[in-house]
Amino acid sequence: MADDANLNEILALGQRARRAQAVIARTASVQKNDALKSMARRIRDRCNEILTANDLDLRRAGDGRLHNALIDRLRLDPGRVDAIAGSLEEISALPDPVGQIIAEWQRPNGLSISRVRVPIGVIGVIFESRPYVTADAGALAMKSGNAAILRGGSDSFNSSRAIADAMQQGLEEVGLPREVVSSIPTIARSAVGMMLEGLGGAIDLIVPRGGKALVERVQREARVPVFSHLEGICHVYVHGDADMTKAAAICLNSKMRRTGVCGAAETILIDRSLLPNAGGIIRTLIEAGCEVRGDRYIAQLDARVVPAKEEDWSTEYLDAIISIRTVDGAADAADHIRRYGSQHTDSIVTENIEAAERFMREVDSAIVLHNASTQFADGGEFGFGAEIGIATGRLHARGPVGLEQLTTFKYKVRGTGQIRP
Amino acid sequence: MADDANLNEILALGQRARRAQAVIARTASVQKNDALKSMARRIRDRCNEILTANDLDLRRAGDGRLHNALIDRLRLDPGRVDAIAGSLEEISALPDPVGQIIAEWQRPNGLSISRVRVPIGVIGVIFESRPYVTADAGALAMKSGNAAILRGGSDSFNSSRAIADAMQQGLEEVGLPREVVSSIPTIARSAVGMMLEGLGGAIDLIVPRGGKALVERVQREARVPVFSHLEGICHVYVHGDADMTKAAAICLNSKMRRTGVCGAAETILIDRSLLPNAGGIIRTLIEAGCEVRGDRYIAQLDARVVPAKEEDWSTEYLDAIISIRTVDGAADAADHIRRYGSQHTDSIVTENIEAAERFMREVDSAIVLHNASTQFADGGEFGFGAEIGIATGRLHARGPVGLEQLTTFKYKVRGTGQIRP
Repeated sequence: MADDANLNEILALGQRARRAQAVIARTASVQKNDALKSMARRIRDRCNEILTANDLDLRRAGDGRLHNALIDRLRLDPGRVDAIAGSLEEISALPDPVGQIIAEWQRPNGLSISRVRVPIGVIGVIFESRPYVTADAGALAMKSGNAAILRGGSDSFNSSRAIADAMQQGLEEVGLPREVVSSIPTIARSAVGMMLEGLGGAIDLIVPRGGKALVERVQREARVPVFSHLEGICHVYVHGDADMTKAAAICLNSKMRRTGVCGAAETILIDRSLLPNAGGIIRTLIEAGCEVRGDRYIAQLDARVVPAKEEDWSTEYLDAIISIRTVDGAADAADHIRRYGSQHTDSIVTENIEAAERFMREVDSAIVLHNASTQFADGGEFGFGAEIGIATGRLHARGPVGLEQLTTFKYKVRGTGQIRP
Repeated sequence: MADDANLNEILALGQRARRAQAVIARTASVQKNDALKSMARRIRDRCNEILTANDLDLRRAGDGRLHNALIDRLRLDPGRVDAIAGSLEEISALPDPVGQIIAEWQRPNGLSISRVRVPIGVIGVIFESRPYVTADAGALAMKSGNAAILRGGSDSFNSSRAIADAMQQGLEEVGLPREVVSSIPTIARSAVGMMLEGLGGAIDLIVPRGGKALVERVQREARVPVFSHLEGICHVYVHGDADMTKAAAICLNSKMRRTGVCGAAETILIDRSLLPNAGGIIRTLIEAGCEVRGDRYIAQLDARVVPAKEEDWSTEYLDAIISIRTVDGAADAADHIRRYGSQHTDSIVTENIEAAERFMREVDSAIVLHNASTQFADGGEFGFGAEIGIATGRLHARGPVGLEQLTTFKYKVRGTGQIRP
């Protein structure tokens, strides 16, 4: 395709998505759910075709351009394809936020005002190697009355396209426009730039799913709103009144359950008064295969502790490495989190309710926890059913972004002829 | 001041606002309300000083650089100063949104999750000639736990500064940092550019208050989120089943109550079936001093109707001029609004509930009304007490922006040692 043809094709795709969104915005829940079930059926039916496309992507990736971890994210098998279809069925069972009344009140002049959820519009999703994002993001956007324009990484181009094709077939089967879920038909990098500029007014919101370099580019260049988090530098603060058994279990789980997720803890803060009893936490982590980097007080407790450097406090390891620092009480812990944290997810372990409430009030992160693992930072764990990502921006959506967060609202005002004095 | 000194001074002001915001975020409602009452007292006490500053601004404006309407907006007198103080007292009586629980639920694993309102952070307010915006915007931001950095137009520089000084005195009197409300100490235009870039990470949100040129610049250049509306091209749609007495009253009020506000109607859409009875609406408007620009069907009804041009349908007159177009039913009206509207405020007049509900569902504006004047598009009329502006953006805040809309939220998760399987 020539560059100009590409450009016009992509702009036209934006306009078709906009028109399709006007339809899906008014579509009844039952029809949207039917579409999701149709999509799931088509994905299962076309499993072989999807795996063949995935094989193409894997062969290109095998040229040595991708790390093994990325290849693993990219790889599909019949079980994974079935799970993708299953996740569409789960989304079909979630409540539809569109039309929900958020608030309703009456004015002294008789006007009745209600605040009602409506879709956001057209959502651009830019992601890297995980092909399942195609299905999850498309389905969440559609169920909440939005259209999705998906742009998978060049690594997963064929896999994503095959999944998107099956979804479009599912949409058509229930009489909905296929452009409710569309994918950018080129791996040209200029397509990302066009999406970040809003595709000629067609895109209302961008959701990037991927590594720090991608999210940084999106945050820097986007001319439309973005739901994203750059990194999750999450803390567990073990307060002086902590139950040390809970503390060890929460520290271990927060780091080691999965080290590569954004809700994984990167730093533990321990009150100085606990130092005589902190050996257990350190031992537990090291014996689970975690490298511990500590300040000099922590290093004295266990010969296997690596001395922490200044940059450790602001590093998202995404690996089996954790930094541990001694703090002088809750205010000092909050200061550390303010300075080095990423306003994502932070937890306090304590039996002192007052200290817990104060920490949760003063630490300005999207999610603050008391006596629980930071790995609960997840839309599914929040009861949202599924999430399109986690946001650390301050406006509209913070924390897990589920169906409800993919809507906005409008005011409906019902009168009987009122005019304003 | 040299340019470099200016730049550093403004950046330092941003950092001081950020620190002051950390204090006001935790300040109890009663102390914030005391501060508002102190501010009101200081504004009344220093009325003469404020009027002297205003006189300076008026003398500069009198050089012919400003239209009379703008000079009227700029002018203060003892009554207006008293009203400014009164509005601070009214804001002190409003409920404090900070800490309000928006939602609360329990997970099967025993985790208790609550979604709690927290301040947004530091809000930059960029406005033109109305000095009262200093007080209203500063007070709304402060009451909702935010700090405000105010940048009044060069026309109102001295007036705004005198009001901000009195407010800072009020803050200090109750032991709060004066930098909760600060004003940019220069009329240099580069200061606006710095604010739009976020003042080195110090500003979380920009609210522009002013004409279309200002809002356009802010929307184009801002690198932080913006709450704004570019224009209010508001419609009254008179549906075939309208009560024509209500319709005439609503059309007249929507346009003529105040022609310069964003909620003023600019276009009336009338169902073709009503043409034989539409003369009354046209007469009422013309006799109230309004110029009517109509399509050819409307022009046939009254010799005083001026033929409308294509650009009339997309013009915000902000004056005693209205355009009237004949439409073929509700779908045609909705199409017209989609094409020419600004997603601000649109009203349907009808006795047909089904048609009204359909219009309110399908017209995608921040505010949709049934049988009521578009001039109700106002935070006070919505019961918000006061507003910092009206937003037509789709995310976070739509419609009137009051105290609640100046907050965001975080999740507090309370556990008993839960770890994630």
